[in-house]
Amino acid sequence: MTTLYSFWRSLATYRVRVALALKGVVPDEIVTVDLTRGDQHGDAFDAVNPMHALPAFVDDGGGAPLVQSLAIIEYLDETRPEPPLLPPDPRGRARVRSLALMIAADSHPLMVPRVREYLERELGLPEPARTEWCRHWIRTALAALERRLAGEPETGRFCHGDTVSLADICLVSQVAGAGFFEVDTVAFPTVRRIAETCSAIEAFASAHPLRQPGAPTAA
Amino acid sequence: MTTLYSFWRSLATYRVRVALALKGVVPDEIVTVDLTRGDQHGDAFDAVNPMHALPAFVDDGGGAPLVQSLAIIEYLDETRPEPPLLPPDPRGRARVRSLALMIAADSHPLMVPRVREYLERELGLPEPARTEWCRHWIRTALAALERRLAGEPETGRFCHGDTVSLADICLVSQVAGAGFFEVDTVAFPTVRRIAETCSAIEAFASAHPLRQPGAPTAA
Repeated sequence: MTTLYSFWRSLATYRVRVALALKGVVPDEIVTVDLTRGDQHGDAFDAVNPMHALPAFVDDGGGAPLVQSLAIIEYLDETRPEPPLLPPDPRGRARVRSLALMIAADSHPLMVPRVREYLERELGLPEPARTEWCRHWIRTALAALERRLAGEPETGRFCHGDTVSLADICLVSQVAGAGFFEVDTVAFPTVRRIAETCSAIEAFASAHPLRQPGAPTAA
Repeated sequence: MTTLYSFWRSLATYRVRVALALKGVVPDEIVTVDLTRGDQHGDAFDAVNPMHALPAFVDDGGGAPLVQSLAIIEYLDETRPEPPLLPPDPRGRARVRSLALMIAADSHPLMVPRVREYLERELGLPEPARTEWCRHWIRTALAALERRLAGEPETGRFCHGDTVSLADICLVSQVAGAGFFEVDTVAFPTVRRIAETCSAIEAFASAHPLRQPGAPTAA
Protein backbone atom coordinates (compact mmCIF):
# COMPACT_ATOMS: atom_id res chain seq x y z
CA MET A 1 0.00 0.00 0.00
CA THR A 2 1.33 3.43 -1.01
CA THR A 3 0.35 6.66 0.72
CA LEU A 4 1.01 10.24 -0.38
CA TYR A 5 0.62 13.10 2.09
CA SER A 6 -0.50 15.93 -0.12
CA PHE A 7 -2.12 19.34 -0.42
CA TRP A 8 -3.33 20.85 -3.65
CA ARG A 9 -1.24 24.00 -3.33
CA SER A 10 2.05 22.39 -2.20
CA LEU A 11 4.49 22.82 -5.08
CA ALA A 12 6.88 20.23 -3.64
CA THR A 13 4.04 17.70 -3.56
CA TYR A 14 3.15 18.64 -7.14
CA ARG A 15 6.65 17.49 -8.14
CA VAL A 16 6.15 14.10 -6.50
CA ARG A 17 2.67 13.75 -8.04
CA VAL A 18 4.20 14.27 -11.51
CA ALA A 19 6.95 11.72 -10.83
CA LEU A 20 4.44 9.16 -9.54
CA ALA A 21 2.24 9.68 -12.62
CA LEU A 22 5.21 9.38 -15.00
CA LYS A 23 6.16 6.12 -13.29
CA GLY A 24 2.60 4.85 -13.44
CA VAL A 25 2.23 4.72 -9.66
CA VAL A 26 -1.24 5.55 -8.39
CA PRO A 27 -1.08 6.01 -4.59
CA ASP A 28 -3.52 3.77 -2.77
CA GLU A 29 -4.20 6.52 -0.28
CA ILE A 30 -3.97 10.31 -0.41
CA VAL A 31 -3.86 11.99 3.01
CA THR A 32 -4.70 15.68 2.78
CA VAL A 33 -2.62 17.94 5.03
CA ASP A 34 -4.30 21.33 4.79
CA LEU A 35 -1.47 23.86 4.91
CA THR A 36 -3.88 26.81 5.08
CA ARG A 37 -5.38 25.35 8.27
CA GLY A 38 -1.97 24.53 9.79
CA ASP A 39 -2.47 20.74 9.71
CA GLN A 40 1.27 20.35 9.10
CA HIS A 41 1.91 21.50 12.69
CA GLY A 42 -0.58 19.06 14.24
CA ASP A 43 0.39 15.94 16.17
CA ALA A 44 -0.70 13.57 13.41
CA PHE A 45 1.63 15.02 10.81
CA ASP A 46 4.37 15.81 13.33
CA ALA A 47 4.83 12.05 13.69
CA VAL A 48 5.19 11.77 9.92
CA ASN A 49 7.64 14.64 9.40
CA PRO A 50 9.11 16.66 12.28
CA MET A 51 10.03 19.33 9.71
CA HIS A 52 6.28 19.95 9.27
CA ALA A 53 6.61 20.13 5.49
CA LEU A 54 4.98 18.31 2.62
CA PRO A 55 5.25 15.93 0.85
CA ALA A 56 5.67 12.57 2.57
CA PHE A 57 5.41 9.22 0.85
CA VAL A 58 4.98 5.72 2.27
CA ASP A 59 5.91 3.00 -0.18
CA ASP A 60 4.59 -0.52 -0.50
CA GLY A 61 5.80 -2.54 2.44
CA GLY A 62 5.52 0.37 4.84
CA GLY A 63 8.50 1.67 6.73
CA ALA A 64 9.10 5.24 7.78
CA PRO A 65 7.57 7.89 5.52
CA LEU A 66 10.01 9.30 2.99
CA VAL A 67 10.22 13.08 2.95
CA GLN A 68 11.73 15.86 0.82
CA SER A 69 10.48 15.97 -2.77
CA LEU A 70 13.85 15.50 -4.48
CA ALA A 71 14.79 12.57 -2.23
CA ILE A 72 11.42 10.93 -2.91
CA ILE A 73 11.76 11.41 -6.67
CA GLU A 74 15.29 9.96 -6.71
CA TYR A 75 13.94 7.01 -4.70
CA LEU A 76 11.11 6.50 -7.18
CA ASP A 77 13.63 6.66 -10.02
CA GLU A 78 15.80 4.01 -8.36
CA THR A 79 12.94 1.67 -7.49
CA ARG A 80 10.87 2.21 -10.69
CA PRO A 81 13.52 2.86 -13.36
CA GLU A 82 11.12 3.41 -16.29
CA PRO A 83 10.96 6.03 -17.63
CA PRO A 84 14.24 7.36 -16.18
CA LEU A 85 14.08 10.86 -14.72
CA LEU A 86 17.85 11.40 -14.79
CA PRO A 87 20.26 11.07 -17.74
CA PRO A 88 22.63 8.08 -17.81
CA ASP A 89 25.91 10.07 -17.65
CA PRO A 90 27.26 11.65 -14.44
CA ARG A 91 27.76 15.05 -16.10
CA GLY A 92 24.19 15.06 -17.42
CA ARG A 93 22.90 13.96 -14.03
CA ALA A 94 24.83 16.79 -12.37
CA ARG A 95 23.32 19.28 -14.82
CA VAL A 96 19.77 18.06 -14.26
CA ARG A 97 20.18 17.96 -10.49
CA SER A 98 21.67 21.47 -10.47
CA LEU A 99 18.75 22.87 -12.47
CA ALA A 100 16.35 21.14 -10.07
CA LEU A 101 18.14 22.52 -7.01
CA MET A 102 18.11 26.09 -8.35
CA ILE A 103 14.36 25.80 -7.90
CA ALA A 104 13.86 23.35 -5.07
CA ALA A 105 16.66 24.72 -2.86
CA ASP A 106 17.45 28.28 -3.92
CA SER A 107 13.96 29.57 -4.61
CA HIS A 108 10.98 27.58 -3.39
CA PRO A 109 11.98 27.30 0.32
CA LEU A 110 11.84 31.11 0.51
CA MET A 111 8.10 31.24 -0.15
CA VAL A 112 6.67 28.32 1.77
CA PRO A 113 3.97 28.94 4.40
CA ARG A 114 6.35 28.96 7.40
CA VAL A 115 8.43 31.73 5.81
CA ARG A 116 5.44 33.84 4.82
CA GLU A 117 4.07 33.40 8.35
CA TYR A 118 7.37 34.56 9.88
CA LEU A 119 7.41 37.63 7.63
CA GLU A 120 3.88 38.47 8.72
CA ARG A 121 3.87 37.57 12.42
CA GLU A 122 7.46 38.10 13.55
CA LEU A 123 8.51 40.92 11.24
CA GLY A 124 5.09 42.56 10.80
CA LEU A 125 5.62 42.79 7.06
CA PRO A 126 2.36 43.92 5.43
CA GLU A 127 0.99 43.13 2.01
CA PRO A 128 1.99 43.77 -0.75
CA ALA A 129 5.58 43.43 0.56
CA ARG A 130 5.04 39.75 1.45
CA THR A 131 3.83 38.93 -2.04
CA GLU A 132 6.65 40.98 -3.57
CA TRP A 133 9.11 38.92 -1.49
CA CYS A 134 7.78 35.72 -3.06
CA ARG A 135 7.78 37.26 -6.53
CA HIS A 136 11.36 38.45 -6.15
CA TRP A 137 12.72 34.98 -5.35
CA ILE A 138 10.60 33.32 -8.03
CA ARG A 139 11.91 35.82 -10.62
CA THR A 140 15.53 35.51 -9.47
CA ALA A 141 15.52 31.76 -10.03
CA LEU A 142 13.53 31.98 -13.28
CA ALA A 143 16.00 34.53 -14.67
CA ALA A 144 19.00 32.33 -13.86
CA LEU A 145 17.18 29.26 -15.17
CA GLU A 146 16.34 31.05 -18.43
CA ARG A 147 19.98 32.10 -18.86
CA ARG A 148 21.15 28.52 -18.44
CA LEU A 149 18.44 26.88 -20.53
CA ALA A 150 18.78 29.38 -23.38
CA GLY A 151 22.57 29.26 -23.34
CA GLU A 152 23.51 25.65 -22.68
CA PRO A 153 23.70 23.27 -25.64
CA GLU A 154 22.17 20.36 -23.70
CA THR A 155 18.75 22.04 -23.67
CA GLY A 156 16.33 20.43 -26.11
CA ARG A 157 12.58 20.04 -26.19
CA PHE A 158 12.93 19.64 -22.45
CA CYS A 159 15.52 20.98 -19.97
CA HIS A 160 17.96 18.23 -20.84
CA GLY A 161 17.62 16.94 -24.38
CA ASP A 162 14.34 15.58 -25.62
CA THR A 163 13.45 13.50 -22.57
CA VAL A 164 11.54 14.53 -19.46
CA SER A 165 13.75 14.76 -16.37
CA LEU A 166 13.71 15.85 -12.76
CA ALA A 167 14.64 19.34 -13.99
CA ASP A 168 11.40 19.62 -15.98
CA ILE A 169 9.39 18.51 -12.98
CA CYS A 170 10.94 21.30 -10.90
CA LEU A 171 10.62 23.85 -13.70
CA VAL A 172 6.91 23.17 -14.00
CA SER A 173 6.43 23.54 -10.24
CA GLN A 174 8.24 26.89 -10.38
CA VAL A 175 6.05 28.12 -13.25
CA ALA A 176 2.96 27.10 -11.25
CA GLY A 177 4.35 29.12 -8.32
CA ALA A 178 4.81 32.07 -10.66
CA GLY A 179 1.14 31.69 -11.55
CA PHE A 180 0.03 31.65 -7.91
CA PHE A 181 1.94 34.88 -7.21
CA GLU A 182 1.09 36.48 -10.57
CA VAL A 183 4.67 36.77 -11.76
CA ASP A 184 4.92 37.76 -15.43
CA THR A 185 7.01 35.10 -17.18
CA VAL A 186 7.25 36.82 -20.58
CA ALA A 187 10.98 37.47 -20.04
CA PHE A 188 11.61 33.73 -19.72
CA PRO A 189 10.65 32.29 -23.12
CA THR A 190 12.67 29.07 -22.89
CA VAL A 191 11.20 28.29 -19.48
CA ARG A 192 7.70 28.97 -20.82
CA ARG A 193 8.22 26.83 -23.90
CA ILE A 194 9.36 23.86 -21.82
CA ALA A 195 6.54 24.33 -19.30
CA GLU A 196 4.01 24.34 -22.16
CA THR A 197 5.56 21.23 -23.69
CA CYS A 198 5.31 19.48 -20.32
CA SER A 199 1.75 20.54 -19.64
CA ALA A 200 0.62 18.75 -22.79
CA ILE A 201 1.72 15.49 -21.14
CA GLU A 202 -1.05 13.86 -19.10
CA ALA A 203 1.22 13.02 -16.13
CA PHE A 204 1.95 16.72 -15.71
CA ALA A 205 -1.55 17.94 -16.48
CA SER A 206 -3.30 15.57 -14.07
CA ALA A 207 -0.86 16.42 -11.26
CA HIS A 208 -1.42 20.18 -11.53
CA PRO A 209 -2.37 21.90 -8.26
CA LEU A 210 -5.63 23.24 -9.66
CA ARG A 211 -6.76 19.72 -10.58
CA GLN A 212 -6.43 18.40 -7.01
CA PRO A 213 -9.21 17.97 -4.44
CA GLY A 214 -9.75 21.16 -2.46
CA ALA A 215 -8.34 23.47 -5.11
CA PRO A 216 -10.32 26.57 -6.02
CA THR A 217 -12.20 26.30 -9.28
CA ALA A 218 -10.26 27.99 -12.08
CA ALA A 219 -11.89 31.19 -13.29
CA MET B 1 42.82 20.18 -14.25
CA THR B 2 40.20 20.68 -11.51
CA THR B 3 39.03 24.09 -10.31
CA LEU B 4 36.94 24.95 -7.27
CA TYR B 5 35.28 28.36 -6.96
CA SER B 6 35.29 28.94 -3.25
CA PHE B 7 35.00 31.39 -0.39
CA TRP B 8 35.99 30.63 3.16
CA ARG B 9 32.58 31.48 4.63
CA SER B 10 30.39 29.73 2.03
CA LEU B 11 28.77 26.80 3.80
CA ALA B 12 27.74 25.17 0.51
CA THR B 13 31.37 25.28 -0.64
CA TYR B 14 32.42 23.82 2.71
CA ARG B 15 30.29 20.76 1.86
CA VAL B 16 32.04 20.30 -1.47
CA ARG B 17 35.46 20.79 0.13
CA VAL B 18 34.69 17.97 2.57
CA ALA B 19 33.51 15.67 -0.24
CA LEU B 20 36.61 16.42 -2.31
CA ALA B 21 38.85 15.72 0.66
CA LEU B 22 37.06 12.46 1.50
CA LYS B 23 37.51 11.38 -2.14
CA GLY B 24 41.17 12.39 -2.09
CA VAL B 25 40.72 15.06 -4.77
CA VAL B 26 42.94 18.12 -4.32
CA PRO B 27 41.72 20.87 -6.70
CA ASP B 28 44.50 22.11 -8.98
CA GLU B 29 43.13 25.62 -8.71
CA ILE B 30 41.07 27.47 -6.11
CA VAL B 31 39.38 30.62 -7.38
CA THR B 32 38.30 32.88 -4.55
CA VAL B 33 34.93 34.57 -5.03
CA ASP B 34 34.70 37.10 -2.21
CA LEU B 35 31.04 37.12 -1.18
CA THR B 36 31.56 40.02 1.22
CA ARG B 37 32.83 42.15 -1.68
CA GLY B 38 30.04 41.03 -4.06
CA ASP B 39 32.38 39.18 -6.45
CA GLN B 40 29.56 36.69 -7.11
CA HIS B 41 27.66 39.43 -8.99
CA GLY B 42 30.64 40.40 -11.18
CA ASP B 43 30.95 39.54 -14.88
CA ALA B 44 33.66 36.93 -14.31
CA PHE B 45 31.54 34.79 -12.00
CA ASP B 46 28.30 35.55 -13.83
CA ALA B 47 29.73 33.55 -16.74
CA VAL B 48 30.40 30.65 -14.35
CA ASN B 49 27.02 30.62 -12.57
CA PRO B 50 24.14 32.93 -13.57
CA MET B 51 22.61 32.17 -10.16
CA HIS B 52 25.54 34.08 -8.58
CA ALA B 53 26.00 31.46 -5.89
CA LEU B 54 28.91 29.33 -4.76
CA PRO B 55 30.26 26.72 -5.19
CA ALA B 56 31.21 25.86 -8.76
CA PHE B 57 33.49 23.03 -9.78
CA VAL B 58 35.28 22.31 -13.06
CA ASP B 59 36.41 18.73 -13.40
CA ASP B 60 39.36 17.27 -15.27
CA GLY B 61 38.70 17.60 -18.99
CA GLY B 62 36.94 20.93 -18.61
CA GLY B 63 33.38 21.41 -19.72
CA ALA B 64 30.85 23.73 -18.15
CA PRO B 65 31.32 24.39 -14.44
CA LEU B 66 29.12 22.22 -12.25
CA VAL B 67 27.04 24.12 -9.70
CA GLN B 68 24.87 23.41 -6.64
CA SER B 69 26.66 21.68 -3.78
CA LEU B 70 24.44 18.57 -3.64
CA ALA B 71 24.63 18.06 -7.42
CA ILE B 72 28.42 18.38 -7.31
CA ILE B 73 28.71 15.92 -4.42
CA GLU B 74 26.49 13.36 -6.15
CA TYR B 75 28.66 13.80 -9.27
CA LEU B 76 31.83 13.25 -7.24
CA ASP B 77 30.26 10.17 -5.70
CA GLU B 78 29.41 8.77 -9.15
CA THR B 79 32.79 9.53 -10.71
CA ARG B 80 34.96 8.68 -7.66
CA PRO B 81 33.00 5.91 -5.92
CA GLU B 82 35.37 5.41 -2.96
CA PRO B 83 34.51 6.01 -0.22
CA PRO B 84 30.78 6.07 -1.05
CA LEU B 85 28.83 9.01 0.33
CA LEU B 86 25.42 7.37 -0.09
CA PRO B 87 24.21 4.00 1.23
CA PRO B 88 23.75 1.16 -1.27
CA ASP B 89 19.98 0.69 -0.77
CA PRO B 90 17.33 3.04 -2.23
CA ARG B 91 15.58 3.50 1.13
CA GLY B 92 18.85 4.40 2.84
CA ARG B 93 19.74 6.75 0.01
CA ALA B 94 16.35 8.43 0.34
CA ARG B 95 16.90 8.88 4.07
CA VAL B 96 20.37 10.36 3.65
CA ARG B 97 19.23 12.67 0.85
CA SER B 98 16.24 13.82 2.88
CA LEU B 99 18.42 14.68 5.88
CA ALA B 100 20.76 16.56 3.56
CA LEU B 101 17.90 18.49 1.96
CA MET B 102 16.43 19.53 5.32
CA ILE B 103 19.62 21.55 5.64
CA ALA B 104 20.65 22.40 2.09
CA ALA B 105 17.14 23.23 0.86
CA ASP B 106 14.93 24.04 3.84
CA SER B 107 17.36 26.00 5.99
CA HIS B 108 20.57 27.26 4.43
CA PRO B 109 19.06 29.12 1.42
CA LEU B 110 17.23 31.37 3.89
CA MET B 111 20.44 32.86 5.27
CA VAL B 112 22.68 33.30 2.25
CA PRO B 113 24.06 36.78 1.42
CA ARG B 114 21.39 37.64 -1.18
CA VAL B 115 18.61 37.01 1.35
CA ARG B 116 20.28 38.98 4.14
CA GLU B 117 20.86 41.81 1.66
CA TYR B 118 17.19 41.82 0.66
CA LEU B 119 16.12 41.93 4.31
CA GLU B 120 18.41 44.91 4.89
CA ARG B 121 18.04 46.92 1.69
CA GLU B 122 14.53 46.17 0.45
CA LEU B 123 12.76 45.60 3.76
CA GLY B 124 14.89 47.89 5.91
CA LEU B 125 15.17 45.21 8.59
CA PRO B 126 17.67 46.34 11.23
CA GLU B 127 19.96 44.30 13.38
CA PRO B 128 19.43 42.26 15.52
CA ALA B 129 16.31 41.17 13.59
CA ARG B 130 18.40 40.06 10.59
CA THR B 131 20.59 37.86 12.75
CA GLU B 132 17.54 36.52 14.58
CA TRP B 133 16.06 35.59 11.17
CA CYS B 134 19.11 33.46 10.42
CA ARG B 135 19.11 31.94 13.89
CA HIS B 136 15.43 31.05 13.64
CA TRP B 137 15.86 29.04 10.43
CA ILE B 138 19.05 27.39 11.65
CA ARG B 139 17.28 26.31 14.85
CA THR B 140 14.14 25.13 13.05
CA ALA B 141 16.15 22.74 10.91
CA LEU B 142 18.41 21.64 13.76
CA ALA B 143 15.38 20.84 15.93
CA ALA B 144 13.78 18.70 13.22
CA LEU B 145 17.12 17.07 12.45
CA GLU B 146 17.66 16.25 16.13
CA ARG B 147 14.18 14.70 16.35
CA ARG B 148 14.90 12.48 13.36
CA LEU B 149 18.45 11.53 14.31
CA ALA B 150 17.55 10.77 17.94
CA GLY B 151 14.41 8.83 16.98
CA GLU B 152 15.28 6.86 13.87
CA PRO B 153 16.97 3.48 14.29
CA GLU B 154 19.29 3.99 11.28
CA THR B 155 21.30 6.63 13.16
CA GLY B 156 24.67 5.33 14.32
CA ARG B 157 28.03 6.92 14.94
CA PHE B 158 27.10 9.07 11.96
CA CYS B 159 23.73 10.19 10.57
CA HIS B 160 23.24 6.89 8.78
CA GLY B 161 24.95 3.97 10.45
CA ASP B 162 28.65 4.04 11.12
CA THR B 163 29.76 5.43 7.77
CA VAL B 164 30.17 9.06 6.71
CA SER B 165 27.53 10.16 4.21
CA LEU B 166 26.21 13.22 2.43
CA ALA B 167 23.97 13.81 5.45
CA ASP B 168 26.97 14.22 7.76
CA ILE B 169 28.55 16.68 5.34
CA CYS B 170 25.41 18.79 5.44
CA LEU B 171 25.01 18.43 9.21
CA VAL B 172 28.52 19.71 9.76
CA SER B 173 27.91 22.72 7.49
CA GLN B 174 24.76 23.51 9.46
CA VAL B 175 26.61 23.33 12.78
CA ALA B 176 29.27 25.67 11.37
CA GLY B 177 26.45 28.05 10.37
CA ALA B 178 25.11 27.82 13.92
CA GLY B 179 28.57 28.85 15.10
CA PHE B 180 28.70 31.86 12.76
CA PHE B 181 25.34 33.10 14.02
CA GLU B 182 26.00 32.12 17.65
CA VAL B 183 23.11 29.67 17.91
CA ASP B 184 23.22 27.60 21.08
CA THR B 185 23.18 23.93 20.05
CA VAL B 186 22.87 22.43 23.55
CA ALA B 187 19.31 21.29 22.79
CA PHE B 188 20.56 19.17 19.90
CA PRO B 189 22.84 16.57 21.52
CA THR B 190 22.72 13.99 18.72
CA VAL B 191 23.58 16.62 16.12
CA ARG B 192 26.46 17.81 18.31
CA ARG B 193 27.77 14.32 18.90
CA ILE B 194 27.84 13.55 15.18
CA ALA B 195 29.42 16.93 14.35
CA GLU B 196 32.15 16.27 16.90
CA THR B 197 32.75 12.77 15.53
CA CYS B 198 33.11 14.24 12.05
CA SER B 199 35.39 17.06 13.06
CA ALA B 200 37.94 14.53 14.31
CA ILE B 201 38.29 13.33 10.70
CA GLU B 202 40.98 15.22 8.78
CA ALA B 203 38.83 15.66 5.62
CA PHE B 204 36.28 17.57 7.68
CA ALA B 205 38.78 19.46 9.80
CA SER B 206 40.89 20.69 6.89
CA ALA B 207 37.80 21.84 4.95
CA HIS B 208 36.46 23.96 7.83
CA PRO B 209 35.68 27.58 6.92
CA LEU B 210 38.04 28.98 9.53
CA ARG B 211 40.93 27.03 8.03
CA GLN B 212 40.54 28.56 4.55
CA PRO B 213 42.52 31.48 3.07
CA GLY B 214 40.95 34.81 3.96
CA ALA B 215 39.20 33.55 7.09
CA PRO B 216 39.49 35.56 10.28
CA THR B 217 41.92 34.12 12.80
CA ALA B 218 40.07 32.13 15.46
CA ALA B 219 40.14 33.78 18.86
